[in-house]
Amino acid sequence: MKKLTSLFVACATLACVTSASAQFAKPEEAVKYRKNALFVMQQNFGRVAGMAAGKVPFDAKVAAESAAVAEFVSKLPWAAFGPGTDQGDTKAKHEIWTDKAKFDDYAVKMQAEMTKLAAAAKSGNLEAIKVAVNATGGTCKSCHDDFRAK
Amino acid sequence: MKKLTSLFVACATLACVTSASAQFAKPEEAVKYRKNALFVMQQNFGRVAGMAAGKVPFDAKVAAESAAVAEFVSKLPWAAFGPGTDQGDTKAKHEIWTDKAKFDDYAVKMQAEMTKLAAAAKSGNLEAIKVAVNATGGTCKSCHDDFRAK
Repeated sequence: MKKLTSLFVACATLACVTSASAQFAKPEEAVKYRKNALFVMQQNFGRVAGMAAGKVPFDAKVAAESAAVAEFVSKLPWAAFGPGTDQGDTKAKHEIWTDKAKFDDYAVKMQAEMTKLAAAAKSGNLEAIKVAVNATGGTCKSCHDDFRAK
Repeated sequence: MKKLTSLFVACATLACVTSASAQFAKPEEAVKYRKNALFVMQQNFGRVAGMAAGKVPFDAKVAAESAAVAEFVSKLPWAAFGPGTDQGDTKAKHEIWTDKAKFDDYAVKMQAEMTKLAAAAKSGNLEAIKVAVNATGGTCKSCHDDFRAK
C-alpha cells in the first residue's frame, strides 16, 4: 500500500512537472512568465498594503479590486518553476528545486493568505485588511528569505 | 444639455485618468506593469492559439484554464496607459495618447473577444476555439499595427 502510494505521488508529481514545463516554449519564457506574474501581483498587493500602512488614502473599491487581482494572479507563477528554469535572468535559488516540498508549501500558504486578504478587502473593513496584509506579507518574506537571492 | 454632457464626459475621463495614474508609484512601474500583464496574457493566449493551429496537441482542460487566465489578465494593462507613461522602455506609440478613443476601442474589443474565447474554450469545442482564436488574434494585430512601434 505504501509502495502504491509512493508510486501514485511520484506519477502525480511527474505529470505535474511535465505539464508545467510543457506550458512554456523555452525556459527563458517560464522565467519571464513567473517574474511578470509576480510583479503584477506585487503591484496590486502593494497598493492594498500602502492603504493598510496609511501611506495612501484608503479607497475601499480600489482595495477590493486590487486584492482580487492579487489573489487571482497569485495562482499563476508556480507552473513556471519547472525543471531547467533555474538559470538565466532569475534570482531563484537552486534550493527551490532541491527543497521543492518546502517551496511548494510556501506557495500554497501565500495563495491562502491572498484569498483571506481578498475576502477582507471585499468586506471593506480596514482593520481586517491590515491583519490580512501583515499575514500575506509574512508569507512573501519567508519565501524570499529562503529561496530568493539578494 | 450638450455642454453638461461634455462636462460630464470630461470629468469622468479626468477621474479615470487620475485613478489610473494614481495606481502606480512611478511611470516606469506603469510601463512595466502593462508589459508584464500583456506577456502573461500572451503566453496563455498563445498556448490556446497553438492548439487551435494544431502545433500542440489539444488539451481541453489546459485550453480552458489558459483562456480563462488570458481573459482575466486582458483587463489589467489599460489602467497603466496613463499620462506620462509614453516614455522609457516601451514600444507604445505616442498616438495612444493623441488618439485615445481609438486605442480604448481596440482595448474594449480585445477584451470582448477574449471573453468569447474563454467561453469557447470552456465548452471544449475545438472548432469554436479556432474561430475565437482568429477573432481575438485579429484584435491584437489591429492594435499593434496602429499603436505599437516595430
